[in-house]
Amino acid sequence: MVDIKAEEIFKEFKEHSIAEFFKKNRQMLGYSGMVRSLVTIVHEYVTNSLDACEEAGILPDINVKIDEIGEYKYRINVTDNGPGIPKKYVGKALGTILAGTKFHRYMQQRGQQGIGAAGCLLFAQTTTGKPIHVKSSTDNKKAYTCDILIDTAKNQPIVTNINEFYSDNFRGLSVEGEFADIKYENSEHGVFEYLKRTALANPHCQINFIDPEGKSYLFVRAVEQMPQRPKPIQPHPLGLTTNDLLEFAHSSESRKISSFLIETFTRVTQNKVNELRELAPSVDLDKSPKEMTWVDAEELIKSIRKVKWIAPDATSVIPIGEDQIKIALKNILNPEYMSVVERKPKVFRGGIPFIVEAAVAYGGNAGRQTDQEVSGNILRFANRVPLLFDSGNCAITEAAKEIDWKRYNIDIETQPISIFVNVSSVYIPYSGVGKEAISKEDEIIEEIKLAIMEAARGVQNFIRGKEHVAFEVGRYKTIMRYAKQLSLNLSEITGENQDRILKELENIIVAHYPKAKLNEEEKNEKEKTTESNKNKEIEDSETAD
Amino acid sequence: MVDIKAEEIFKEFKEHSIAEFFKKNRQMLGYSGMVRSLVTIVHEYVTNSLDACEEAGILPDINVKIDEIGEYKYRINVTDNGPGIPKKYVGKALGTILAGTKFHRYMQQRGQQGIGAAGCLLFAQTTTGKPIHVKSSTDNKKAYTCDILIDTAKNQPIVTNINEFYSDNFRGLSVEGEFADIKYENSEHGVFEYLKRTALANPHCQINFIDPEGKSYLFVRAVEQMPQRPKPIQPHPLGLTTNDLLEFAHSSESRKISSFLIETFTRVTQNKVNELRELAPSVDLDKSPKEMTWVDAEELIKSIRKVKWIAPDATSVIPIGEDQIKIALKNILNPEYMSVVERKPKVFRGGIPFIVEAAVAYGGNAGRQTDQEVSGNILRFANRVPLLFDSGNCAITEAAKEIDWKRYNIDIETQPISIFVNVSSVYIPYSGVGKEAISKEDEIIEEIKLAIMEAARGVQNFIRGKEHVAFEVGRYKTIMRYAKQLSLNLSEITGENQDRILKELENIIVAHYPKAKLNEEEKNEKEKTTESNKNKEIEDSETAD
Repeated sequence: MVDIKAEEIFKEFKEHSIAEFFKKNRQMLGYSGMVRSLVTIVHEYVTNSLDACEEAGILPDINVKIDEIGEYKYRINVTDNGPGIPKKYVGKALGTILAGTKFHRYMQQRGQQGIGAAGCLLFAQTTTGKPIHVKSSTDNKKAYTCDILIDTAKNQPIVTNINEFYSDNFRGLSVEGEFADIKYENSEHGVFEYLKRTALANPHCQINFIDPEGKSYLFVRAVEQMPQRPKPIQPHPLGLTTNDLLEFAHSSESRKISSFLIETFTRVTQNKVNELRELAPSVDLDKSPKEMTWVDAEELIKSIRKVKWIAPDATSVIPIGEDQIKIALKNILNPEYMSVVERKPKVFRGGIPFIVEAAVAYGGNAGRQTDQEVSGNILRFANRVPLLFDSGNCAITEAAKEIDWKRYNIDIETQPISIFVNVSSVYIPYSGVGKEAISKEDEIIEEIKLAIMEAARGVQNFIRGKEHVAFEVGRYKTIMRYAKQLSLNLSEITGENQDRILKELENIIVAHYPKAKLNEEEKNEKEKTTESNKNKEIEDSETAD
Repeated sequence: MVDIKAEEIFKEFKEHSIAEFFKKNRQMLGYSGMVRSLVTIVHEYVTNSLDACEEAGILPDINVKIDEIGEYKYRINVTDNGPGIPKKYVGKALGTILAGTKFHRYMQQRGQQGIGAAGCLLFAQTTTGKPIHVKSSTDNKKAYTCDILIDTAKNQPIVTNINEFYSDNFRGLSVEGEFADIKYENSEHGVFEYLKRTALANPHCQINFIDPEGKSYLFVRAVEQMPQRPKPIQPHPLGLTTNDLLEFAHSSESRKISSFLIETFTRVTQNKVNELRELAPSVDLDKSPKEMTWVDAEELIKSIRKVKWIAPDATSVIPIGEDQIKIALKNILNPEYMSVVERKPKVFRGGIPFIVEAAVAYGGNAGRQTDQEVSGNILRFANRVPLLFDSGNCAITEAAKEIDWKRYNIDIETQPISIFVNVSSVYIPYSGVGKEAISKEDEIIEEIKLAIMEAARGVQNFIRGKEHVAFEVGRYKTIMRYAKQLSLNLSEITGENQDRILKELENIIVAHYPKAKLNEEEKNEKEKTTESNKNKEIEDSETAD
């Protein structure tokens, strides 16, 4: 038997950078499959643009342009009207993995990792060898352009071709890259759908999209009002682990543990500190937080769990809002009927606040509708960002699966229904680095279920009505078919005029099924309107739905 | 409208370490849910032990011990008889994320990331504040113990309490840590099942497991022979991207591109270089590889795809082997019948070799069997490592789902069936950092399907036979029930002795359903044996199945 010594084996020991890791495992960032890879690129840049605009208090205007420049090779440009990136930060912001302004802030944002944009660059660089090209201005006056690559061994940016100039009419960020091994597809998992859903959850933003065929689609801003700006919040004591508490304590400048607790966390008052003092007599709350030991922290956490706390501040989590969702659904899906629910803030893992919003929309452009068939779909969002992939791994899908839909007269397999769910939180527990699914935490699933069920209750009478009409329409049509034959037979027997008999019979049937008749008329009316709409679409085909 | 300037926003700009990232997002490493978190810890350490033993040519003897030391708090020890870790490397090997001997080697190993062990330490440290305690010797003579923590801000180990001593009888590695927020559960997703499946795919290893109740289970070594050792291989030209080729070229010491190609990649001969020279006349193959440009590399990759290549060297991928799987299945599941298939090596993404093995086992302890019901299960493995979680995200599950099981008389919902699949490769494309699922790449799914279908064909006649017998048994029992009444009636009519008539009737029925009678006898026989086995189990309850 060979017996190789450890010293021999460990000659190969090396350290690696996070950039090398993701270069080798790009599927973990969402770069698996050509269609998905393209969406991931657009997703990362658009998400960053939205976060930047909102942080600066600017209504987002985003342009996305995709050009095909070879086989499975595209040039992608995303331009926004945001605050721009100061020149000295641009390399790290777009070309270093795990660098950014978001990771350490405890507030609701779309991005939270500092991985996305650098991941895109890594993907561009490894598939086409090209840097990304950036143009930015932070003040409508001075602007610059530059190229950025990553030194993957060091996870550091290489910024070249810096060119400064004066620009009167541009403020914001424009990022352009060439990417290969990707594919544009107009499917449910494609960029068009991604942007449509982005518009759905962000009615305050305007998106102009030019697809590889040069067709332009405008997702018009539906509300002129900036969403309320979430603020960084203080953590709630119930959301802390022993380790968190200890780390906060050791980096605190407070003089005593007692004042540290009041100053660092939300809902901690002098009264609460007094309660803790009684519950954990072994911990000296008058010593410096820097002297806190693990045992102290453990004791405090135990005591914290025994105290009654007011729930975390709800103002830290900003949902889309019931009215805004209604406007957006009307704007994008134009359903026959919808029910929108905004739940109260809840907490998971003890102290992380989150809010679930749900809607069920029926008819119009809701659901999946092709010439062949109609079915429902689930539109998943986390902090207003559409989640198109990994649905099987997601708390939203799980919640929808656990619902007994029959109770609400809903059949997702056959009805034109869209189930809309948005989860907002200062911390979304994504199941993977690619952030395509929300981890299946029980408290989150339960709350999503309640939200969907509440929305479903809102549409169930409407759908029952629809189904009843459908049932009557069926009967009405069947009986009408027999009426003609019957009138002929009766005419032969009685010698009476057949048309008169038929007329009489029809009157009786219509009187018996009034809804069916009404429905038929509406349908004819609608078909006419649809026809004229179609013509309209052809006329201004430059404008999207 | 507020308009905050970019300079203001970027005051918050920071860089973060990968350790901080995973501290905040531990669910991405498999630490989500208390049961899963415990399995993840055992999985990481056992996987490292197996890799180390095999690399050193030692038949693995692994001891796993779990003690409950508080509410949702356990001490976990994993000890192996491997080569040990030299003292100067132990901190980085167990306490730095993305450091190790495996990441940069192009060979088949269980671990491939250098994340697992450091992730465990991070989890221990953030849930109990305790370091992990290590004991190791690399030569049966000098040994040491020490404690390790991670400085998460720097992703660097802190090694303390180093204690060196002489030890005559220990070589290997022992890692012990205290972990909280975890839970031991004896379920299909628990540690016992994980170790059982590890034994199933690694018949050359012996595992002794002591559960929190102090019960000891021994998974006995089934084969005394080391698996063939996979070797680091040269990449195959068809598996290269432009970027790969360029990076290999720039770090090459070869004098010319032509010799670089022959020396660096497998299956590249002088003849193939000549073909490439003709296909890509614009590339000067006589210049230094350090001078290769992206355009050169792109041109070469295009040409490489036009040349006919011999498939990559199959010896680089080592499957478990048909015989070994049979021994292991017999040892662990003891099925009534099984069919094992080892497929030929295939490639995905052009040049990454992989081998799929599949087995279908019926009866015995196969499938899920409780008092209430029986059903089938799928045992997923990647490089012999059991995959217990994220099944919905996995190529193996997908492949199994796409099969028309009825064709093979198989019903996974109701039959005691285990579908075993092991995928071996120098690079397994995991879908997440937690490595619990194989990314759904079409070529891999297709090959797994073929393997399972081949194995399923091997059992279909057996199952058809079983079902036929079951059908006959049903008929036989029904008719037997009527025989008694019939014999009474006949006896009354004819005056003949009822017992004689019944006997005659039974003879006729048995002659008509011989299999049913045989089956009944076998079953009685088996029940007797099972009874006596049960007694045996109670006697030596210290030994596992």
